[in-house]
Amino acid sequence: MSKTSRDLSPIFKPKSVALIGATSNPLKYGCIIVANILANEYKGRIYPINPSEENVWGLKVYPHISDVPEEVDLVDIARPAEAVPEHIEECVESNVKSAIVISGGFKETGKEGEKREKEIARIARKGGMLLVGPNTMGIYSASVSLSALMPPILPKPGDISLISQSGNIGTNLLALGSAQGIGFNKFVSSGNEADITILEYMEYFAQDPASKIILLYTEGLREGRNFVDVVKRITEEKPVIIFKSAVSKAGASAAKSHCGALAGSSKIYEAAIKQSGAIRASTVNGMLDLAVGFLYLPLPKGNRVGIVTWGGGYGVIASDSCELAGLEVPALPQETIQKIDQLLPSYWSRGNPVDLVGLINRDIQPKCLDEVTKAENIDMIIAAGFILSRSIGSAIYKLLGREEEDADATWAESSSQKIVEDIRTLVDKYHKPIVAVTLTTDPTTLKKVLEKRIPAYSTLETAAEVLAKMYEYKKNLNLKKEKEQKAQLQA
Amino acid sequence: MSKTSRDLSPIFKPKSVALIGATSNPLKYGCIIVANILANEYKGRIYPINPSEENVWGLKVYPHISDVPEEVDLVDIARPAEAVPEHIEECVESNVKSAIVISGGFKETGKEGEKREKEIARIARKGGMLLVGPNTMGIYSASVSLSALMPPILPKPGDISLISQSGNIGTNLLALGSAQGIGFNKFVSSGNEADITILEYMEYFAQDPASKIILLYTEGLREGRNFVDVVKRITEEKPVIIFKSAVSKAGASAAKSHCGALAGSSKIYEAAIKQSGAIRASTVNGMLDLAVGFLYLPLPKGNRVGIVTWGGGYGVIASDSCELAGLEVPALPQETIQKIDQLLPSYWSRGNPVDLVGLINRDIQPKCLDEVTKAENIDMIIAAGFILSRSIGSAIYKLLGREEEDADATWAESSSQKIVEDIRTLVDKYHKPIVAVTLTTDPTTLKKVLEKRIPAYSTLETAAEVLAKMYEYKKNLNLKKEKEQKAQLQA
Repeated sequence: MSKTSRDLSPIFKPKSVALIGATSNPLKYGCIIVANILANEYKGRIYPINPSEENVWGLKVYPHISDVPEEVDLVDIARPAEAVPEHIEECVESNVKSAIVISGGFKETGKEGEKREKEIARIARKGGMLLVGPNTMGIYSASVSLSALMPPILPKPGDISLISQSGNIGTNLLALGSAQGIGFNKFVSSGNEADITILEYMEYFAQDPASKIILLYTEGLREGRNFVDVVKRITEEKPVIIFKSAVSKAGASAAKSHCGALAGSSKIYEAAIKQSGAIRASTVNGMLDLAVGFLYLPLPKGNRVGIVTWGGGYGVIASDSCELAGLEVPALPQETIQKIDQLLPSYWSRGNPVDLVGLINRDIQPKCLDEVTKAENIDMIIAAGFILSRSIGSAIYKLLGREEEDADATWAESSSQKIVEDIRTLVDKYHKPIVAVTLTTDPTTLKKVLEKRIPAYSTLETAAEVLAKMYEYKKNLNLKKEKEQKAQLQA
Repeated sequence: MSKTSRDLSPIFKPKSVALIGATSNPLKYGCIIVANILANEYKGRIYPINPSEENVWGLKVYPHISDVPEEVDLVDIARPAEAVPEHIEECVESNVKSAIVISGGFKETGKEGEKREKEIARIARKGGMLLVGPNTMGIYSASVSLSALMPPILPKPGDISLISQSGNIGTNLLALGSAQGIGFNKFVSSGNEADITILEYMEYFAQDPASKIILLYTEGLREGRNFVDVVKRITEEKPVIIFKSAVSKAGASAAKSHCGALAGSSKIYEAAIKQSGAIRASTVNGMLDLAVGFLYLPLPKGNRVGIVTWGGGYGVIASDSCELAGLEVPALPQETIQKIDQLLPSYWSRGNPVDLVGLINRDIQPKCLDEVTKAENIDMIIAAGFILSRSIGSAIYKLLGREEEDADATWAESSSQKIVEDIRTLVDKYHKPIVAVTLTTDPTTLKKVLEKRIPAYSTLETAAEVLAKMYEYKKNLNLKKEKEQKAQLQA
């Protein structure tokens, strides 16, 4: 953590939370947020605040923050913009340590709003209170099971920490990831960043051991130079994955980039992100694809891919995707080919990709994968077509009268679970990344794959992109090491 | 249908099907294929053929094709390559009208295989028997409920007909589509195309009223000039969507493109596909995204997009995606802005995209959408963030003790179904395409959206790409009309 950055623990590890604007009217966020906090089983104390209600979701309501019987770590404010400055004053007076202002109606709406925003930032800073937002959808923290979010989401706890300048993109990523079995440690919708900025959240997540990887959705980077310096330092410790939008005229106009944002074209951003050593996702959902790759797999030592597929078409598209992503698809060593000769019918291609030529006997799959993975000139592996959809097999199940059978049993009966376990074993044995590709979108299947800590992507393009970016990150780390060694020698 | 192309009805509308190599050994395709045919409830007669078995899945087995008590329309051959020429002879002798050779071990394996392949093609042609493959995963036809496929899949019947040079890509698309509620009319894995080629399948699907749209996965186009001419003619009647792989050196090497394939670089293919008027998908799964757009929506008359979102971040990414796809995001007419002024809080952006600024009252959504859709300078609409995941709402449901509630009820209770119905109504009212974007990957939700004939994409990039390609197709049709009118005037 840099000297200037503050300790954000009151926001992400509060012992108590109050909600100003709590209400039992289910059409108001003051109701939904309390529901989220309760449903997520927050480990601290909760104080709904509202002078005109007495009971929200079964909790005692306090008229004002000053009535709460303790000094509160975090206050969430869900009240019209006009009322916010006064509430911020009250919070400061009651020694509240941090506040989230979810209300809109600030800088994003024009001059008057901007003035109001400056006012609340001034009061908070003067009072030594941290301020999230305004115009934010809130925060999530697995550390204390706190889901202080506007949309009714129950994120899955995990290792990813996410900062999003857009509340809806951020919370949708939480929902999407959680539905896929991808877990989050901390999340903040940074909103207008009147007080705490992206970089400060990033520095906090950087020193937080529970945040294994940092994701950032941004529309405009402020503090350009500083951004590069700070992120560069962080990426040496943990991966930072960024999706930057507002890269076109229409996009920039939609984002109405704020003053102070890193000016100019997509290329300037690209250069800044590259210089920072952060990994740039090509789509917003792609941040999650990259995250699971970095989380679960070792980094590749080189850029040479081995491709093993159940089906030739996969091999062709995988080869295309790897080459276009800057990876190599080298010929396999003679030794590997000879080993696979003993496993596959004589008419197998003897090349890379290795196509398993429609074999029904799936015991041979892990053996072929083993040979390719251990080949000396292979740094990373794409295994495509091994994880079957539960809808594959449906014909047989229907005939056998087992159509309605329990999903888990169907899964267990399929060979998919076994192959994923085998893949995991190979990753751990050879310390090389293996990613799976499956056209199934069945969430039950995909969740079970992720539980084994194997990323399963729905397209070969994604698999190639993730591996290429893991290699790029590794290369950057190596460069840094080399520099340090040189510096040591020269010293 | 051109004069040279043959009637492929014996393959896609057979009254009877025989399977040479049928067996009760579940580890053989001769077993799985019969299971598929039975499970899919084929409307014709089925004759398993095997001299050493008597009963397969409860069906009487005949020793040889000559023992079958009728002249069979379609024979499926699942026997080792060496045995195939003899079976082809037998079929011709028994007046079989068409045959599918699923066996591998032909041209794809070298000289000897190539010789064998020429031999079976020669026998079939001489005997006037149509030949699918060899090295194919089979065919599907909703017209007669026939799933003569190697993988155990039950495709959903529908309007899309698919030709795939790769069996695994093709059958995976069937499985993927069906899992998402996307239906297919006919499918063929064209295999080595010893007899029937892609173009002949395409001509057959072109004149088939049940095939509303044609999809093609190809690794190498043969008959370059002819391809352009034939496809050009077809695209004037119905959309043809193509994904071409083997566009890199590594990909081409994996595909080991056959002699006679349209030689050369990705650019040549690109030009040929463009010239043909076909729509080129940028990913293989993307073919399905495009297909539902073309199937369910009217073509846009211009390239101007209106964007309505629940959340500002969506608007930014949507604007980026549209501009990068060549679409315009124009300012809204003053009249439209005034109408929306009456619907949204005063601080709404007054621009395009229209962000619904976090409104909980979802009754306003369709009203805003209506205003944008009817705006005179808007040709097509992206509606993002309206279709919620069923996992959104989970917090509230948990608190209300309704966590385990029936999925359909949860869906019905959400506002998603209503908004999709409203969107459909707007499409039909204004004859402009509206695509939805939702980050949910929940298949139950997505299927219900598709049932209303509204495409729901998981990324804004996809939505923009589909709309851009629908516009391009419309532009091509207009050009053709103009030419015809000019020709008439000159005549």
